[in-house]
Amino acid sequence: MLEIVKRDGLARLCKFETRSGILKTPALLPVVNPKILIVTPKELYNEFGFRAIITNSYIIKNDTNLKNRAQTEGLHRMLDFPGIIMTDSGTFQSHMYGEVKVTNDEMIDFQKSIGTDIGTVLDIFTEPYWTREEVSRSVSETLERTRHACDIKGDMMINGVVQGSVYPDLREDCARKMATMNVDVHPIGGTVPLMEQYRYAELVDIIIASKKGLAAGRPVHLFGAGHPMILAFATLLGCDLFDSASYAKFARDDRFMFTDGTFRLNDIQFLDCNCPACRGNTLESIKKMDKKSRESIIARHNLYQITNELALIRRCIEEERLWELAEIRCRAHPALLDGLRRLRFYKDYLECKEPISRDRAIFYTGSESRARPAFHRYTERLLERYVPYFHKAAIFTDSKKPYSKYYASGFNRVRAAGYTPIIMSPFGPVPAELDEIYPIAQSLFPGIIDCDTNEDVKKMTDLFFEKVKFEEVISENEIKSGNIEYDTNQIRVRATAMYQFGPEATNALLHGKIDLVLSRKTGKVRNVISDGEHVLSMRANDGFYTLRPEGAKRIIELVPTPKFRAIVVDDAVPYILQGRNAFCQFVANMDPNIRPMEEIIVVDKDDNFVATGRAILTWDEIKSFKRGIAVKIRSGGSEV
Amino acid sequence: MLEIVKRDGLARLCKFETRSGILKTPALLPVVNPKILIVTPKELYNEFGFRAIITNSYIIKNDTNLKNRAQTEGLHRMLDFPGIIMTDSGTFQSHMYGEVKVTNDEMIDFQKSIGTDIGTVLDIFTEPYWTREEVSRSVSETLERTRHACDIKGDMMINGVVQGSVYPDLREDCARKMATMNVDVHPIGGTVPLMEQYRYAELVDIIIASKKGLAAGRPVHLFGAGHPMILAFATLLGCDLFDSASYAKFARDDRFMFTDGTFRLNDIQFLDCNCPACRGNTLESIKKMDKKSRESIIARHNLYQITNELALIRRCIEEERLWELAEIRCRAHPALLDGLRRLRFYKDYLECKEPISRDRAIFYTGSESRARPAFHRYTERLLERYVPYFHKAAIFTDSKKPYSKYYASGFNRVRAAGYTPIIMSPFGPVPAELDEIYPIAQSLFPGIIDCDTNEDVKKMTDLFFEKVKFEEVISENEIKSGNIEYDTNQIRVRATAMYQFGPEATNALLHGKIDLVLSRKTGKVRNVISDGEHVLSMRANDGFYTLRPEGAKRIIELVPTPKFRAIVVDDAVPYILQGRNAFCQFVANMDPNIRPMEEIIVVDKDDNFVATGRAILTWDEIKSFKRGIAVKIRSGGSEV
Repeated sequence: MLEIVKRDGLARLCKFETRSGILKTPALLPVVNPKILIVTPKELYNEFGFRAIITNSYIIKNDTNLKNRAQTEGLHRMLDFPGIIMTDSGTFQSHMYGEVKVTNDEMIDFQKSIGTDIGTVLDIFTEPYWTREEVSRSVSETLERTRHACDIKGDMMINGVVQGSVYPDLREDCARKMATMNVDVHPIGGTVPLMEQYRYAELVDIIIASKKGLAAGRPVHLFGAGHPMILAFATLLGCDLFDSASYAKFARDDRFMFTDGTFRLNDIQFLDCNCPACRGNTLESIKKMDKKSRESIIARHNLYQITNELALIRRCIEEERLWELAEIRCRAHPALLDGLRRLRFYKDYLECKEPISRDRAIFYTGSESRARPAFHRYTERLLERYVPYFHKAAIFTDSKKPYSKYYASGFNRVRAAGYTPIIMSPFGPVPAELDEIYPIAQSLFPGIIDCDTNEDVKKMTDLFFEKVKFEEVISENEIKSGNIEYDTNQIRVRATAMYQFGPEATNALLHGKIDLVLSRKTGKVRNVISDGEHVLSMRANDGFYTLRPEGAKRIIELVPTPKFRAIVVDDAVPYILQGRNAFCQFVANMDPNIRPMEEIIVVDKDDNFVATGRAILTWDEIKSFKRGIAVKIRSGGSEV
Repeated sequence: MLEIVKRDGLARLCKFETRSGILKTPALLPVVNPKILIVTPKELYNEFGFRAIITNSYIIKNDTNLKNRAQTEGLHRMLDFPGIIMTDSGTFQSHMYGEVKVTNDEMIDFQKSIGTDIGTVLDIFTEPYWTREEVSRSVSETLERTRHACDIKGDMMINGVVQGSVYPDLREDCARKMATMNVDVHPIGGTVPLMEQYRYAELVDIIIASKKGLAAGRPVHLFGAGHPMILAFATLLGCDLFDSASYAKFARDDRFMFTDGTFRLNDIQFLDCNCPACRGNTLESIKKMDKKSRESIIARHNLYQITNELALIRRCIEEERLWELAEIRCRAHPALLDGLRRLRFYKDYLECKEPISRDRAIFYTGSESRARPAFHRYTERLLERYVPYFHKAAIFTDSKKPYSKYYASGFNRVRAAGYTPIIMSPFGPVPAELDEIYPIAQSLFPGIIDCDTNEDVKKMTDLFFEKVKFEEVISENEIKSGNIEYDTNQIRVRATAMYQFGPEATNALLHGKIDLVLSRKTGKVRNVISDGEHVLSMRANDGFYTLRPEGAKRIIELVPTPKFRAIVVDDAVPYILQGRNAFCQFVANMDPNIRPMEEIIVVDKDDNFVATGRAILTWDEIKSFKRGIAVKIRSGGSEV
């Protein structure tokens, strides 16, 4: 059972409940070879804090001694590991050494018999060089085996592995079918050769295709990914679980893993590592050690790199800056950068999961940042929802932010002459009245502009002026003065509401006499009163508004259901009326176009107002999760 | 006395000799406030390994107790620090609090009296908002004071601070004058406000202007730079010394320094640090500590971040990948990225210090990598030195490397038809015969190309086809077959020699019958025999040639001195003849156009051949260094 705690990009912090304890994701499961224990499972648990490991049931089954012990003592006692144990099924061995001589049924039964927490179907490893037909046939077989495994799994959890080689459509189709089965975890399989060959753009295609098909409420495991270099990026793409055999395999070859690559002991010129394994050692002292001690130190170093990177990843999700971390990590190798650049192909998909704002500003790390869905969101909403107040435009160049402060007198001058000030920002054209919304105000760019930005801005500017047919577009310098003074707050409120809620809801919210309550401290709009009713309040930090109950009721009245709504079951209504949060299992239907952190109205099945709040999850996520907060309630209808 | 050990970009690993020991640079000097010792100097030395600290002589002088102790015990005993102590003079106090009531003479005498190893002139802090005239006047005064300080410094080393505010020409002029004085270390001063205001593009202008004026043989200290975020980039720009008061100042405010920024204890969501100070603690445990313990832990954390980053920087210089590290670090903040992007304005200067090749491939981290001088070098040399063998061109798209292997049959086909194969790479057009040289073969790019690359390639392609007037330029697809087979090795040898040595030397080297000795293993050219004389051998890894003594003698004969030569004094000749390296102090003159790691011929004052080797330093560097290897000798004239 999975519960989402926090999100960023496609990444999420979750709690995954198993019979051997709760696993906090993202998490990596070290691969434990039951025959060679460089670092013991107990050390993995106590010293490194790993709460789950993965071992291979096929290897255990083929070793008489291990098999007997596992079946009599159970896997947990045999390995002396108090946490969660996942087992693989022999599929990877078939990739490495050809056919394996076991059946799917045998492997499921065996995994059950040794007390595995999460077993794996004996799926078919689809190789990247296979033809489409071969892959398609194998995927069908894997699906069939998975279906059967679900029938016989008993109380063991099960991995349903998404296969499909390098064909995104086959991957997505496989994932979609897996999602309908009684599977507990979804590994994405068959990706090791791609990672070994540094084909990261294709890896991105595969991960995103799989994510599109899978159900949001189950953890996704990127099988075979365990290098600290890739963890941040794969987490950003929505992978929750990883495993690493390389910490030990590399150690055997004297290779140190770092977030910027793998380096051989003999090539490293200087030991710059402060991890508990390295500290106190020098390159020379490590080189002089006997093979076994050296292997142990390097394996521990590799594990510390992994735990440290995972901790940083978790921190970055909490602090809503995982995009920045992933973008930086992808620059460790041009092939990873290729993967990062591939994201521009998926802007529509990424936009659906993108929160409406963040507490933290967007930091531009290079032209690759333009793939961030915040750019695409702004483009789409501006083109679809913006209606100018003045029908002539005056162009300003990009400047320090907030634009309204930097250009205060310039904006007044051109408005007085009847022009809308438009700033040419790295996001494209920004009407002055939208300069406080996320991410316009909450973003930082270098002063020297890259060519990709210039191209994008040019394209978007053309689209914008084509869509908004201004009578005239001139440079602000051409306007010397004007003679009418406008209440720019009125312009700002309407433009922001349009951007945030669209025309239909804005017309419902704002009609008749609009009174504005300003903050004494900042002079900014705090409350919006329409015909005497308090409909909107300013949201902290991101320039958007919160819906007040009166505003919500206006929308309910004029905008047909389920737009802007989460419809909850009757049982939950009394609690939510009192301001309790709306949990996933109580949401019966919801507007599928609501993005994470957007304002939403909770109603009962008869469309009566229950509460206002912020959507934490999207509708397709809520459907898939059996627990966790769906809507964070701000004002319940029974609250004073 | 400074000795260079290794270099990369403008960065260098040096040994700096002082009377209190040798300092390995790049190094950071923690600022020690003699009144508040959060971490004691002894701990800085023993626990953190700092070999030098900086403290403030002005503060000591103004405290009767400290003053008396410093003058009786001496600074080293008073602070209980066994390493090198640098003192500042009160200049920063004048920036912070206005005029200081001491004279330059007083401050120099006082610093001498307390046993400072490296004292500082009481220079004038030039503020970024000052007018050019104010700055210019102040710089004159600083120069005058420095000149006088040199006269009275005795056996104390002295900091001659480069000032000049944000005016690069004033900075360069100040630096050039400082370089003529008997100064020991060159801080770049007055930069703290720029760093505080995140004006990194201007900081780059200032550092490069200063570096241009200064003498290479003295350490450069970027005063006030101590954030781990900036150290890699500043080192890449040629700064050797740094100092940090912020490790303690930030700790007082509960702020943690990381390579990606500074974070407040209350904002951090998760402690992801494995440093010896943090390990064993949690966010909660640190928050619960009393003020003093918390401050101590955070200060230590900050120091560990600094020492760890410096170790990584040193490692990256050794491994010739500091560019990659600096490029990645600059993505932590858009203002730093702005500084990185500024480098494209200095490509000529950067090119002069760029080694001819590296052991490691160039990793492209984003369009900013295009500022790397390797790109500019290739453009310049191709346009200046390339002469095609076939006067028609056939265009190939970029592919896997080496191109000659990937396109083997295609290259044969178009050559047989009398066309030169030209590959359109991210470096611009690459004639097939140059595909093995650095950095063409030794570089990795993402498959998805950025717009800056497209623009650059387009520009360079236009220039290339304008310069090399091919009779015809067509796509390789248009050529179906041809009927002549060429010895492509012959074409390759001449093109590579031209690229490496230019037309004059190539004509001297290659005439008459050219015989090639191929490697049995790789099939590549190993030795080049011209008219029976072995003139060139293949250099390992970078696709260039080493000069054989016979080849060197041909160049001496036909190319006028000092081209391709280092002229050494008579005393050194017998040693170098036997294969010993040529040290800086023995080089009397040298070709100023030789780049680091280029082939060079050592001759005596009468232009007689002495040896062949590789230049480690450029002529302007050799002039400035009093020790260290100038030319690494490969074949001395007396060796068999």
